[in-house]
Amino acid sequence: MTEVNWIENQDGSLWLKEDDRGNLQIHYRLKEILYSEQSPFQHVSIVDTADFGRTLVLDGVVQTTAIDGHIYNEMITHVPIHLHPNPKKVLIIGGGDCGAARELTKYERIEQIDMVEIDELVVKACKTYLPEVSGNLSDPRVRFVFDDGVKFVKEKEQVYDCIIVDSSDPVGPAEVLFEYDFYASLKRALKDDGMMVCQSQSPIFHPSILKQTATHIRSLFRYAKTYTAVVPTYPGGLWSFTIGSKKYPIDPSSARKETVTTKYFNRGILESCFVLPEFMNELLNK
Amino acid sequence: MTEVNWIENQDGSLWLKEDDRGNLQIHYRLKEILYSEQSPFQHVSIVDTADFGRTLVLDGVVQTTAIDGHIYNEMITHVPIHLHPNPKKVLIIGGGDCGAARELTKYERIEQIDMVEIDELVVKACKTYLPEVSGNLSDPRVRFVFDDGVKFVKEKEQVYDCIIVDSSDPVGPAEVLFEYDFYASLKRALKDDGMMVCQSQSPIFHPSILKQTATHIRSLFRYAKTYTAVVPTYPGGLWSFTIGSKKYPIDPSSARKETVTTKYFNRGILESCFVLPEFMNELLNK
Repeated sequence: MTEVNWIENQDGSLWLKEDDRGNLQIHYRLKEILYSEQSPFQHVSIVDTADFGRTLVLDGVVQTTAIDGHIYNEMITHVPIHLHPNPKKVLIIGGGDCGAARELTKYERIEQIDMVEIDELVVKACKTYLPEVSGNLSDPRVRFVFDDGVKFVKEKEQVYDCIIVDSSDPVGPAEVLFEYDFYASLKRALKDDGMMVCQSQSPIFHPSILKQTATHIRSLFRYAKTYTAVVPTYPGGLWSFTIGSKKYPIDPSSARKETVTTKYFNRGILESCFVLPEFMNELLNK
Repeated sequence: MTEVNWIENQDGSLWLKEDDRGNLQIHYRLKEILYSEQSPFQHVSIVDTADFGRTLVLDGVVQTTAIDGHIYNEMITHVPIHLHPNPKKVLIIGGGDCGAARELTKYERIEQIDMVEIDELVVKACKTYLPEVSGNLSDPRVRFVFDDGVKFVKEKEQVYDCIIVDSSDPVGPAEVLFEYDFYASLKRALKDDGMMVCQSQSPIFHPSILKQTATHIRSLFRYAKTYTAVVPTYPGGLWSFTIGSKKYPIDPSSARKETVTTKYFNRGILESCFVLPEFMNELLNK
């Protein structure tokens, strides 16, 4: 577990020093530390940063911010939900900031949103101190389960229309969420026409994880496709997501028409997000 | 002029401390400082960074890196060059890293590439120490002019098919490159069917500069459109470019077919780069 590095400068200013990648350190000027607790799994804090507003920090690493958390959460939810003809039961694995669940509640057609998050403290902290992302979520369709997502999904069969894997980076507890067996259990937990999506890391800094994830999903699902979004506070900005579909082709041009209020996602983005830069085409198709 | 902040840590490691934005500091671990000189305009250095390879740093601010310099340079050149039916004479204003000129030399149809860069030292440094970006440019069609781009373009009328404004941030010497009068002089320097493009800053951190740039270009040119690319080492990752066209509609779907070898740009990107996230549509159309 990483210790959190708060620095107080000589001028009295307070900084968060993020150095999860050894060769790059990002220092965020803080206005205030709103919450800081050790959970059984990690150090959880919510800080107010000068540039990005309120920010969730786990083990010293920025996870989501008020300024751009919606981009990630919109793109991991609205893309698969538009592509599935009739999503009613959705499972989120991870997603402790509650932003993905919040986006799902925008659809009347969705009847049940199960959210399995291992760390209850993250949810509590985000609900209270990060409403910009969590939206103070209180929709009765959202059912929180504080448990190990891998174990939870292994016990399910033919239950969900969509599964959204909103994991943190593949180090420590989240590592198993990038393994073949986990994707195989997602497939079992989905109905015969189900669809899954996961974040598949930075195409620039972690191309091998993206490649591995896409390879697993392609080998398990009839249809698989990778798309991107720009998440400013993630290293490299460019972030990848990969969809696996058991029955329906992943065809954004024939996706369901929906009216949903968003700040990043729109109909054009739904189609263009699957257009990949040349180096990603080469990575994924070689 | 900012002093360059090299830091030597207690463990002997060498770091570049970038703190042009007061609330965010990025520290890059360095392998080596390859070049470090004061020009009449700015401090110019080329460093070898652990994560991004060789990197051009001006006044302590990262400008372009071996790992992602091509993205910016491909996107500021190939998009307008594809959209103009017959570009023969092209002017680059700025672009000292030579990457934009290098991309233009990939087109046989281009006969003349004028590059007006105020700081000769930047060109010299990049040619020698940053071949990953500059490509050790020696194409005879490229004509270097070391002069003030604003002055240079004011003296031209009906000369160029395309003008590419590859400026640094709108502080200090580059500030005038974001003003109305400068865009008006670009219009005069273009032929009657000419097209210009400029980088119009981060839609996330500098929306007002993007808005102002787009407003200037819209008021001067018959057609104007903004597109984006992901440049990982720029703040926020998402970067904007704005095209102005005197005669031809900016219609990527009917753009010229060209075969050009690239690492980011491709035909799909040409069309999808004009699809903007919802917040950018709102910013530009309100």
